[in-house]
Amino acid sequence: MTRLTRFSVAPLATQTRRLADVASGRAAPDLVIRGARVLSTYSERILPEREIWISGGRIAAVKPSGTHKGGARSIYDAKGGIVAPGLVDPHIHIESSMVTACAYAEAALLNGTTTIFCDSHEIGNVMDVAGVEAMLEDARQAPLSIFLTVPSTVPATSPELETAGGDLTPEKIAALFDKWPEAVALGEKMDFVPVAMGDERSHAILAAALSRGRPVSGHVYGREFVAAYAASGVTDTHEAIDREIADDMLEAGIWLFLRGGPPTTPWHSLPQAIKTVTELGASHKRVAVCTDDRDADDLLHFGLDWVVREAVKAGMSPEQAWSMGSLHGATRFGQDGEIGGMGGGRRADLVLMGDGLDPQSTWYGGELVVDGGKITPLLDAALSDRYQYPKSAYQTVKLPKNLRLTPDLPSGPGTLHAIRTELPGITLGHEKIEIGAANDWETLFERHGLCFVTVVERHGKSNGNVAHGVLSNFTLNYGAVASSVGHDSHNIIIAGTNEPDMQLALETVAATQGGVCVVADGKVLAKIDLPIAGLLSDKRVTEVAEETKALKIEWEKAGCSIPYMGFNLIPLSVIPEIRITDKGLVLVPEMEIAPMFEPA
Amino acid sequence: MTRLTRFSVAPLATQTRRLADVASGRAAPDLVIRGARVLSTYSERILPEREIWISGGRIAAVKPSGTHKGGARSIYDAKGGIVAPGLVDPHIHIESSMVTACAYAEAALLNGTTTIFCDSHEIGNVMDVAGVEAMLEDARQAPLSIFLTVPSTVPATSPELETAGGDLTPEKIAALFDKWPEAVALGEKMDFVPVAMGDERSHAILAAALSRGRPVSGHVYGREFVAAYAASGVTDTHEAIDREIADDMLEAGIWLFLRGGPPTTPWHSLPQAIKTVTELGASHKRVAVCTDDRDADDLLHFGLDWVVREAVKAGMSPEQAWSMGSLHGATRFGQDGEIGGMGGGRRADLVLMGDGLDPQSTWYGGELVVDGGKITPLLDAALSDRYQYPKSAYQTVKLPKNLRLTPDLPSGPGTLHAIRTELPGITLGHEKIEIGAANDWETLFERHGLCFVTVVERHGKSNGNVAHGVLSNFTLNYGAVASSVGHDSHNIIIAGTNEPDMQLALETVAATQGGVCVVADGKVLAKIDLPIAGLLSDKRVTEVAEETKALKIEWEKAGCSIPYMGFNLIPLSVIPEIRITDKGLVLVPEMEIAPMFEPA
Repeated sequence: MTRLTRFSVAPLATQTRRLADVASGRAAPDLVIRGARVLSTYSERILPEREIWISGGRIAAVKPSGTHKGGARSIYDAKGGIVAPGLVDPHIHIESSMVTACAYAEAALLNGTTTIFCDSHEIGNVMDVAGVEAMLEDARQAPLSIFLTVPSTVPATSPELETAGGDLTPEKIAALFDKWPEAVALGEKMDFVPVAMGDERSHAILAAALSRGRPVSGHVYGREFVAAYAASGVTDTHEAIDREIADDMLEAGIWLFLRGGPPTTPWHSLPQAIKTVTELGASHKRVAVCTDDRDADDLLHFGLDWVVREAVKAGMSPEQAWSMGSLHGATRFGQDGEIGGMGGGRRADLVLMGDGLDPQSTWYGGELVVDGGKITPLLDAALSDRYQYPKSAYQTVKLPKNLRLTPDLPSGPGTLHAIRTELPGITLGHEKIEIGAANDWETLFERHGLCFVTVVERHGKSNGNVAHGVLSNFTLNYGAVASSVGHDSHNIIIAGTNEPDMQLALETVAATQGGVCVVADGKVLAKIDLPIAGLLSDKRVTEVAEETKALKIEWEKAGCSIPYMGFNLIPLSVIPEIRITDKGLVLVPEMEIAPMFEPA
Repeated sequence: MTRLTRFSVAPLATQTRRLADVASGRAAPDLVIRGARVLSTYSERILPEREIWISGGRIAAVKPSGTHKGGARSIYDAKGGIVAPGLVDPHIHIESSMVTACAYAEAALLNGTTTIFCDSHEIGNVMDVAGVEAMLEDARQAPLSIFLTVPSTVPATSPELETAGGDLTPEKIAALFDKWPEAVALGEKMDFVPVAMGDERSHAILAAALSRGRPVSGHVYGREFVAAYAASGVTDTHEAIDREIADDMLEAGIWLFLRGGPPTTPWHSLPQAIKTVTELGASHKRVAVCTDDRDADDLLHFGLDWVVREAVKAGMSPEQAWSMGSLHGATRFGQDGEIGGMGGGRRADLVLMGDGLDPQSTWYGGELVVDGGKITPLLDAALSDRYQYPKSAYQTVKLPKNLRLTPDLPSGPGTLHAIRTELPGITLGHEKIEIGAANDWETLFERHGLCFVTVVERHGKSNGNVAHGVLSNFTLNYGAVASSVGHDSHNIIIAGTNEPDMQLALETVAATQGGVCVVADGKVLAKIDLPIAGLLSDKRVTEVAEETKALKIEWEKAGCSIPYMGFNLIPLSVIPEIRITDKGLVLVPEMEIAPMFEPA
């Protein structure tokens, strides 16, 4: 067969006659999965003793066990297991896993996820439209159904506050909608304060989607913003952190995507937010589950299937929870005629599992891609021949020579504006430290528990912008860490105790056109190469997962108080209270640049 | 203001900044409805003490009572009543009420219905694309949101079996989709047997919709057809008559529209079909309610609000039932960002009612159109200035002179193939009557309980096709009845006891280019003029309702055993067992023309 992709299954419009023939028994199915219980996402029941007839990668019919007589290319015995529609993740960023779309597919299919709605705003921030389109090509060649929610907030703030590689104007966004049929929605409109305030550019971007009949995905914190945000046309969010704001959003007409994540991360808001259903009595019909962001290693253990099981733990029935993980996201994006359920004509994207909702086997478009928890040779072949990003994607780290990564020592006493890091690692505190005179930074650092933090512009757009600051409570014991993933502009962020190690960290990242590393005493202790846009590895997800695990070990050994995904957010100048971009320290509430040091 | 139509409310894409201003309290709403309980279709709860802020015909926000301070153009005190989103009827044929779309709006709004999805296949059968487009123009000028599900099965069978005025080919249907943005779906694909059998034209029509991403509405009887029908891409139906077929449809991925109708009609299948939810435990999230067909007088008493109340009677909660009457239909057609709930940015299509879900007041696009059960002057003005159909729509009854309406008397003994009418009036029996010699029809009629039935081709397409038959058990005591509404080809159907009265009935219908009448002894006893396409009155719905009531009285007095809506179905050659078209008697299972009489 040809390469296994979303397009391996022909459009339903061209298949109805054959499917009617198969469903009526006039033609043989390609595959019959027999001996199954069926988890119906439509009725939220388990249907006993069923068999599934598949033809051309689509479901021709679900029939009572024993109905099929005669030939089929293939018979699969489900041995009484539960067969359910493949999971549908309504909101994720592939880039968070630092792999390509083709590579991401492997982890998704192992988890029983067969469709994702992804917002590629990281690569958009680096490479503008070219990056979004390269990832769309990547998505088209992946053995997974990948739809795009077009990045809506690039850059996250403005050229005054940070230098990004991309600038997605309303016109560019409109053009993406008009060009790519898989651009089914506008991606999370992160600038919820400007949206609520009626900002002109923000609303022009909303209009580009709404005027084309495309829904708008959201991102909002704070109950006080929900009404204005909903009135602006946003109809989903994934940021509800408790039952009250979840309730507000639901009543404002917003689909709720409950985000689950490893309990050690700040992403695990599902257990609180789901209480709008389990405690406040709301219907779950407009509630879905999502993953949003995952480290590559977590992807394999905390996939959407795990989030579904968390929903069961939180009080939903297995049938309800699986529906929230499949049909509901499909319905929200108008795809329920194609995915999210086992109705006639739907794609045969199916998962076989036991009563614990633990995916064992996955069919993608009628092809067995995971069997007994292992990928099949068919999928292995598809994953070995991944999309190659264009050369320009491998040339996105553009640095001048001889940058100085540490600032001058303050000449006398005064106030140091420090960024205080703290778990869970999203919000950062603004710590004002009164310092006396000192002979060197080491003395100050020891006295106040600080280290350097530096952001280096890497898009080649400035004359080598370098911003200096200090981190409080980052507890780095030695050396330096650096990352070319520095949300959202993805300049290079470096934290360190000394200039030579910080220079080594920067060189290490730059040498491979991107990466994350831990260095000390002139040696590289751990490293992940991210040569594509400085964001993505070009390896398989299992390899990147191994590299990630190794990096995390060195990261923790070095003493870093927040994980690297949190570290990467330090430049994200839309989350309180203080951040650092290539332009300097940003006071978020004021949206102003502040000096690092003010003399007394 | 300008004329009140669907377009009186500007598109959301152009309104988001103002709505964000109003929701944030930076600008005053046009209207605040205060003192309300809100029926949330999103969460299926009643929310106490709320107020609704409306701006530009859209909902800016729903807030706790007492939040609004300061100015608003207008304040409305709901006095503790329930405010809910306007009802959404996902499947109706306006023509069944024998009024125009503009006139239909009055009854809909009185019932709290603010959006309908209509299938104009009756006028399509008479006037082809021109009829569909005239009704679309009519819909655009109506004070009601009217979407089209494009007629899919015109003619209902084939030119061999009947002469229709329209022939909607796949190409014409595709062109309608491409021209009219309100053509959101393919209308009920009534030829479910050919669809299940893989018929080429039927599937080409399905493909015209599916290839454009438009969903397909259905119409299917018989559990044995459901799988093949669903596999053909059909994703809603409204014909489930019991819990078993309802269950089959739901599991095949088909949205269920439960049809409610006056208990005296055959349309009231909701109480049985809803048992898939109330007895078999299916979720109701993909279940909606609809009206399908209504006599004009019934429209005022058995609207969608009545159907919702029937769902409550059948065991659903009021919140669930109202959701089935609003949000669910909106979601099925991808319109839930605009209607079906009271989220931010949605159209302010609202209904005020008491705990019994009895609509008292209706706002359409933020304008009060019904208040305390009476239409407002604003609506009255809109209804007084209705769309004028083109001249060609008033010229659709084309008859040759000197037609003979009664057949020759059989010359000897033999078998008479009679159509047996029986309540509820949908299925018709095939009665084979052995007759002896007789001197006249009267003797035979008296002996066997018969009368004449004649269909006259009226599209000017044949050389005056006239088909003769006999009705058994129609129990017409005198005179004749006639109708230019003869499904689906809408030729003229006449039943009578004698030739002169049948001629008078035909002349009466023809004189006004269409109508329904009861005549006897050379006098017209009752009549409804239907000059538009021979299907629609050009009067207001209240007038047509009065005429309908008067007609029904004479209809019953004359003894007719089935109501005129059932009578109109006698030529509908897709429902068992035997029908009569302008081509003759049609044996439905065989899809063959049969003679009326076979000599022994």
